[in-house]
Amino acid sequence: MRDTIQDLRSLLFAPNSEELVTDSIDHLQPYDLALVLLELEYDEQQRFIDVVSLELATEILEYLEPEDQYRLLHHTSEERAIALLRTLPSDTAVDLFLAIHPRQAEVLLGWLPDEYRERIDTLMTFPENTAGSLATVDYIASREGWTVEKTLAHIRKVGRKAEVISYIYVVNARGQLIDVVSLKEMILAHPQTLLSEIVSNNPIVVAADSDQEEAARLLSQYDFLAIPVVDASNRLVGIISVDDLVDVIQAEATEDIQKLGGSEPLIESYLKTPVLTLFQKRVWWLLVLFFAEAITGNIMRHYEEALMEVIALSFFIPLLIDAGGNTGSQTVTTLVRALALGEIDVEDTWKAVKKEMATGLLLGAVIGIAAFVRAEFMGVTSNLGSVVGLSAFFIIAWASTVAAVLPMVLHRLKVDPAVVSGPLITTLVDGVGILVYFNIAKLLLDI
Amino acid sequence: MRDTIQDLRSLLFAPNSEELVTDSIDHLQPYDLALVLLELEYDEQQRFIDVVSLELATEILEYLEPEDQYRLLHHTSEERAIALLRTLPSDTAVDLFLAIHPRQAEVLLGWLPDEYRERIDTLMTFPENTAGSLATVDYIASREGWTVEKTLAHIRKVGRKAEVISYIYVVNARGQLIDVVSLKEMILAHPQTLLSEIVSNNPIVVAADSDQEEAARLLSQYDFLAIPVVDASNRLVGIISVDDLVDVIQAEATEDIQKLGGSEPLIESYLKTPVLTLFQKRVWWLLVLFFAEAITGNIMRHYEEALMEVIALSFFIPLLIDAGGNTGSQTVTTLVRALALGEIDVEDTWKAVKKEMATGLLLGAVIGIAAFVRAEFMGVTSNLGSVVGLSAFFIIAWASTVAAVLPMVLHRLKVDPAVVSGPLITTLVDGVGILVYFNIAKLLLDI
Repeated sequence: MRDTIQDLRSLLFAPNSEELVTDSIDHLQPYDLALVLLELEYDEQQRFIDVVSLELATEILEYLEPEDQYRLLHHTSEERAIALLRTLPSDTAVDLFLAIHPRQAEVLLGWLPDEYRERIDTLMTFPENTAGSLATVDYIASREGWTVEKTLAHIRKVGRKAEVISYIYVVNARGQLIDVVSLKEMILAHPQTLLSEIVSNNPIVVAADSDQEEAARLLSQYDFLAIPVVDASNRLVGIISVDDLVDVIQAEATEDIQKLGGSEPLIESYLKTPVLTLFQKRVWWLLVLFFAEAITGNIMRHYEEALMEVIALSFFIPLLIDAGGNTGSQTVTTLVRALALGEIDVEDTWKAVKKEMATGLLLGAVIGIAAFVRAEFMGVTSNLGSVVGLSAFFIIAWASTVAAVLPMVLHRLKVDPAVVSGPLITTLVDGVGILVYFNIAKLLLDI
Repeated sequence: MRDTIQDLRSLLFAPNSEELVTDSIDHLQPYDLALVLLELEYDEQQRFIDVVSLELATEILEYLEPEDQYRLLHHTSEERAIALLRTLPSDTAVDLFLAIHPRQAEVLLGWLPDEYRERIDTLMTFPENTAGSLATVDYIASREGWTVEKTLAHIRKVGRKAEVISYIYVVNARGQLIDVVSLKEMILAHPQTLLSEIVSNNPIVVAADSDQEEAARLLSQYDFLAIPVVDASNRLVGIISVDDLVDVIQAEATEDIQKLGGSEPLIESYLKTPVLTLFQKRVWWLLVLFFAEAITGNIMRHYEEALMEVIALSFFIPLLIDAGGNTGSQTVTTLVRALALGEIDVEDTWKAVKKEMATGLLLGAVIGIAAFVRAEFMGVTSNLGSVVGLSAFFIIAWASTVAAVLPMVLHRLKVDPAVVSGPLITTLVDGVGILVYFNIAKLLLDI
């Protein structure tokens, strides 16, 4: 890539730079060109966007951050800026308008044709993380009364700006979605066939105000390349293409993983996130957990005398509380993921809890025996083996149950179950674990 | 859905069932029909697959498990079975052949035309989780010398079976990939344009033997709908379409989440996984962690006298080891995800470790102060606050460092970094935490 950058620098301001630049970057994809662009100085970036073709320029702009997009649009000629803005995919344009100052956005919006601006305005009203916020209006629409031939001619006319040309969206006069017809069906059909003969009136759609995860789930379930987004009256608001949903799927998984690990999700990529941000994303949870865990200390203090009598009891505390935390972490991650994938839902609460309790009892039995052997082996006090073994059994069974109930309840309350992180479960089961342990000890060791 | 099933049952064996069934399911997607089919009895399933159109039957089969696919193929007429098998997407066929008994596979393979069978044979040689193992040969190929018009006619002829018709793969006489041309480019180009005028000789490809995650990464980076898979001599082996990679992306994230939670990944969906399997996937890690943690008990035993003298030391053990574990869990989940997304790589090891150490020092300072206050507040022994506070600081800084170094080192050694789960880090830092704590205590409390 360094070669390309060197080449470009020498060509950008040459006499017939347009041709030279186009030739030198011919072998690169827009994504790569965006990376190249970001290595250049501001004036070189500007020149680069100005000399390449309008189509390529918008494709490169798509991969840039809104502030860079705005800077480049702001410093080019108004004519070019207008052309670029009109060619930019509508979802990218919406993101840009929402990121810049409303006054700046107003100027840019003024450059758009009336009808297009209205549709963009609609898209801008959907809250973040809804299906509507991801939608683009760059789809190909047609009417039931059209023939395949007429539709194909229409595709040729408007297809250049379409985000997805694999599907044609058949709408009625009120803009309501009748059906989705694939380009494949049309290419294979007789040119004189009417679309009304192909449509079946039951397209899979996603409501504009539903969560973006819902759109991702439908799309991956049905293996579509795009999914139509409709409003409450079934009017077609836009479409979401699979490549945008792939980003959503990745981002949602990243968010869940970071939450499950016990931190707030990062907004930017790891290397771009400064240490202070990492610190802020983590410190609150650590403090919350710290204060919750402080209770465990108070509980232990109650058993000071028991501890004084049998100091060996303290040797097994890390072992026991970690066993509980580990089991809880296993359960919680499995369930949170199953919920995110839609593998289980509210109505499966009892099924999931039963399953985890059964698994917890089995795991408790195995680790309980291991703990018994371990404690006996240490040979510290007679009967300590039974105390440690029994405690391990109860703690593990308890941890599994809590770790199953909590995410299911949160999901039912429409709170993201991923807030129940491994660390949170560990902390929550520690106190009860210590209680169980010392009470069993007092009972069996007669202290 | 229950209505559809009732309807179907009454129609399946009616006189003109083909027409009646087709009408009654007209509004459903193949994915939904697969769910409906699985609710039927075996003989009804068979009848269902036999009466619907060949195309729909294969689309439904795609969503079934190999054993069901094989049963349905096995019990239909040979003529129908052959037609179904030839229409089945090649990646689905490969999965079927690999899942059934080799002798059964041989029979089915015998039904395929020679040239197709050879290509399927090639696909079957790629190990699981490689890009090659996901590839399908149902793509549309053309030659550089063809015009757009000729290519479009070719698409009309072979397009019905293609997995993706959005791209045309231009290959030379030796089957090497020259470039990928989009259907959009072709529809918009003049019919007499030669493909050689459109191609640019630098397609983004993935090697057949590279990891499937690499294919997913490229695809989501470049926003493609499919990515070509080539062998070592750049011959086109097949393509992977985005919908298959969406499944890979979901599955890989699921696997990482389950591993990070400290269990082996599940193969089937949660509700389908029996308790005994859940138990097996979890018990080994719990036992490993249990035995590792047992060392902590031994370490504590060394400090029996110190404990006897200041029993209050034991009150802070859960607090301190959990703080270390929680911090480690935050770091490890963040880094494992960043590695999986390709946000960081081997060359960023030092950058990441430095970042985590700096964050760890900050977090250690905050939690250290909180721990100091907490211990002083408890008012147990003078100076205990300093011991607990200092220990918290060192334990958290240490946990961050270990949790940063381990996944980076494993990644360098080409071991999946997700094996460093939150529970593993907790266990690993506990021993050192206890050592640090008691040594600071001995120093400051003069015991």
